[in-house]
Amino acid sequence: MVLPLLTRLDHVGIACRDLDQAIGLYQATFGLEVASLEVNEEQGVREAMLQVGAGPAGVGALGVGYVQLLQPLADDTPVGRFLARRGEGIHHVGYGVSDIGAALAAVGGTGIRLVDERPRHGSMGASIAFLHPADLGGVLTELVQSVTGT
Amino acid sequence: MVLPLLTRLDHVGIACRDLDQAIGLYQATFGLEVASLEVNEEQGVREAMLQVGAGPAGVGALGVGYVQLLQPLADDTPVGRFLARRGEGIHHVGYGVSDIGAALAAVGGTGIRLVDERPRHGSMGASIAFLHPADLGGVLTELVQSVTGT
Repeated sequence: MVLPLLTRLDHVGIACRDLDQAIGLYQATFGLEVASLEVNEEQGVREAMLQVGAGPAGVGALGVGYVQLLQPLADDTPVGRFLARRGEGIHHVGYGVSDIGAALAAVGGTGIRLVDERPRHGSMGASIAFLHPADLGGVLTELVQSVTGT
Repeated sequence: MVLPLLTRLDHVGIACRDLDQAIGLYQATFGLEVASLEVNEEQGVREAMLQVGAGPAGVGALGVGYVQLLQPLADDTPVGRFLARRGEGIHHVGYGVSDIGAALAAVGGTGIRLVDERPRHGSMGASIAFLHPADLGGVLTELVQSVTGT
């Protein structure tokens, strides 16, 4: 394993029923701004990344993290099922890695089951992969290699 | 409101039944090291902070976040009740602020209910306060002013 495997606390993913309302809440309460607004059909979500911290501009910069707000595109999606089962709230946590292929191999080698054997497309052009919550104390965990490789 | 109100994504708080086992899991899987191990009687938890990211040493340094593992001291505590209701998993998210008194006043002024009207003692000497999840889309949210005021 190349250490540190995890380079930063990248984001916390929050499931919501109404994305625009959730964005408004985070703007009004904390003054957070939307860094990215995307639809990810593969994951079945409409999502916003709100930047936390005033680090230098740019993706994956040190000192910058994100609140990721996720609204399901349909009930029969992972986030839709999460909402039906648990209601609105924290859905997952995402950590930065510098090499997602190496990170997946290292984590898989420890016996943790991978939801994604290969990286897929995430927010803001990142390569991402999820790890199985059942092997990580109930925590759905995402690895994120940003477009700048952090 | 002094912007940015939130200076960084400080930590994700994870409820677990066996702290030592959870620490071992995060060490074995991700190579994370324990930065702090404490008992907080007021909050009814035994807890560990595991550093994520290789920023400069020191509390609240830019580029450093934490996984906070929380084991309840008894069933009749907030984390004990969370475990009984939801099982192991993500319990809350904590954001850095530079002035927790001003941050509480600003957030309270937007109509969000405060769990803690005044800051209390948190991990690693920080001053912390929780905001009510019912007003924040089901997300138990913590504000953290570290001992270095970040």
